Formats: sequence, structure tokens, C-alpha cells
Amino acid sequence: MPSTQVDLGDITPELLPYLGQVAALQLLAFEAYSAVVSGVSDVAVKEAVSECAGAALARHQGFVAEIRRRGDEPVAVMQPFAASTAAFREVISGADWRESLLGASVAFGLLNDFFLRLAGGLPGDFGPRAAQLLASDSAADATVRVLQSAIAADPTLSSLLAVWGRSLVGDTLLLARSAMHLTESTRNDEERIEPVFTGLIAAHSRRMDELGLTA
Amino acid sequence: MPSTQVDLGDITPELLPYLGQVAALQLLAFEAYSAVVSGVSDVAVKEAVSECAGAALARHQGFVAEIRRRGDEPVAVMQPFAASTAAFREVISGADWRESLLGASVAFGLLNDFFLRLAGGLPGDFGPRAAQLLASDSAADATVRVLQSAIAADPTLSSLLAVWGRSLVGDTLLLARSAMHLTESTRNDEERIEPVFTGLIAAHSRRMDELGLTA
Repeated sequence: MPSTQVDLGDITPELLPYLGQVAALQLLAFEAYSAVVSGVSDVAVKEAVSECAGAALARHQGFVAEIRRRGDEPVAVMQPFAASTAAFREVISGADWRESLLGASVAFGLLNDFFLRLAGGLPGDFGPRAAQLLASDSAADATVRVLQSAIAADPTLSSLLAVWGRSLVGDTLLLARSAMHLTESTRNDEERIEPVFTGLIAAHSRRMDELGLTA
Repeated sequence: MPSTQVDLGDITPELLPYLGQVAALQLLAFEAYSAVVSGVSDVAVKEAVSECAGAALARHQGFVAEIRRRGDEPVAVMQPFAASTAAFREVISGADWRESLLGASVAFGLLNDFFLRLAGGLPGDFGPRAAQLLASDSAADATVRVLQSAIAADPTLSSLLAVWGRSLVGDTLLLARSAMHLTESTRNDEERIEPVFTGLIAAHSRRMDELGLTA
């Protein structure tokens, strides 16, 4: 649930880089969640996290369809973001599946929220369609349930995960900020981004609260 | 495309073990394809193989829905197959992404074909519904295209992949045979299974032909 006090609706992102980066990031989210599915032996956890992987893949395929609708080739449009996306994967990979699941949840919680706020400035009907894709995270509850139950089963986990979650916020916001830099028209908007980031962090804190973790 | 000369329609598999094993295997297929997505840097390959992962996950979710429709808990019904499924994952993992992709394609080509032939003996409307799920592999073409292009790009690959593909057939048919053993009513049907396996291998050979590989 994004906070709505401040948004980026009056900032106009360039359409193709926006669609390419979001499509690349949703594919990374799919990879991150499916790595958790593969890395855990508990069938109940596999089942729940596979829902998150499927939801990320559905969002990816939605953005790929938007790129095609624009008349462009999805692979070419995603290509410029391949290196930064792969590097970010290292950032969010944890020491075990619980850290990796929280990592994906924290990072894509922030990033989906960020790109959702940016969607309002897209031309034509791309904005509402992008917003609809980014707002649909029916599987987020599954992540929350799995993490809550992992935390309940291991009393030492909560403080470890809280530290790990905090350590990811900075790098994730850096990636979001770099997305802004890619759009020529927003180079002068730096000072307007700060309150948006404050809003993103507030929404992140609420998600951490839901897990019983201190943001 | 399964051959239809011989089928197992007069053999009656027990419903829940059938649904549980197929659901567990489709989740494994999802894991195998998504491991290829994660392990390759080429965005075009990621994009194509993610379609296969999504198709496997959709089949998994379809079988999970059938288990729920039966009034049972999917995780409990899949649990007995967790160990054999995890062991089979080691069997089909290749030395690189091209072997792993062919491994998944060969193994799940054979297994989906096998369980499709077995579906006819399921009670009520579970048979036609299972058959519909197993016959829908809209993403198989994506695997074929990716492998054909990898083979075209590397002349030494074709003989390596042909050997690798052949080495998987025996273990995959063993897994299929063990699925038969789980159903009490089919213990005496051993001699009737042989021609079915011959049919499975013929269909497998046609899929290898399509890749230009000797089965």
C-alpha cells in the first residue's frame, strides 16, 4: 500500500526506459523468489513462495506486453538494464532462504511502490495500465505469512532480519534514484524526489511492522 | 504430442497420489526452468525460458486447485513425493544451462506424456481436467527455439546434448515406473506397461529429432 501524500505524477519519465527497467526488475523478482523455492526443502514454504514468483512473472509478462503494444522488442528494451539488474541481485541475496525472502520482499516492496508513484507521468494510457500491474500483488500475503512463521519458530531471527532489512533500504533507494537519472526530463527534479523517498520509507516501515521487525 | 496407439486408460490410478505426484513434479519443472533463467545472462534466453517456468507453474497451480477441489490440503498430498522429487532434480541438472534446459525438456516431456496417458483412468471429471492441464504446453516452442539456436551457435554441442539426452531417459522412465508402483490396483499391470513405455520413447525421439539430436 503506497502512501499517497506525495507522488511523482508531475514528473514525466521516458516511456521505453521506464517499461524496460520495470520489466527487467520484475524478471529479477521472479528469479529471486524462485531461488528461494529451489533453496528450501519445506514443501509448504515452496508452495507459498512459488505464488510470489508467479505473481512477479505475471507482472513481468504484463510489462513485456506493454512494450510489444508500443511496437518495440522487449529483449532490446530490457537489455540496457541487464547489468545493473544482475548486480542488484547480489545485493538482495541473503545468507539463507529467510534472508533472501526478506531481501526480495523489502527490495521489490520499495521498488514497486516507487515505480507505481512514477507511473502517473507516463504518456497515454500506459500510466494507468502500469499502475494496475504494479499495484496487483496478491501474493504478498504469502510472503508475510511465511516470514511470520519463520520468525515465530526461531527467536534469534527477528533481530537478524531487522538488521538485514535495514541494510537493504539504502541500496534499493540508490537503484530507484538511478532510474530517475535515466530520464532526461527529470534531471532537475532532484530536490522534489526527497519527500517521495521519505514516503517510500514510511510505507516500507509499515511492511516491516507487519512482520514484527524494527525498520 | 503423445502417441495414442497405446494408453493406460484402463488402468485406474489412485486419485490423490496421482494429483500429489504430478503437482510436485510440476513444481520441480518450475524450479528447473527458473534455475536456467537465473543461471544465464543472455536476456533473450531468460525471457524465453521464463515462459516455460511460468507454464510449469500454471500447471502446478492447476493441480493444486484439483487437490483443493477434492477437499484435501495440497502440501500434505505433495509431501510423500518431496524426497523422490528432490533426488530427481539432481538427475536432470546439467553441467551448464544448455544441458539443464535440455534435461528439463526431456524429463518433463516424458513425464507429462506419461501422466497424460494415465489420466484416462482417474475417477469422475478429474481425468479430462488433468489431461487438459498436461496437454497445455504453449511454452514448449520457446525451449525448442532456444536450444536450436544454442546448437546452431556451437557445432560441438549437438553430440554432447544427444548423449546427455539419452542418459536421462532411463532415470526418467524409472521415476514414471515408481509412480505406477504407488497405486495398489496396478501392481499386476507390469506387463501392460512395456508397450506404453515404447510409445513414450517414440514420442521422446520425435522431440529430439525436432532439435536435430539423435535420440
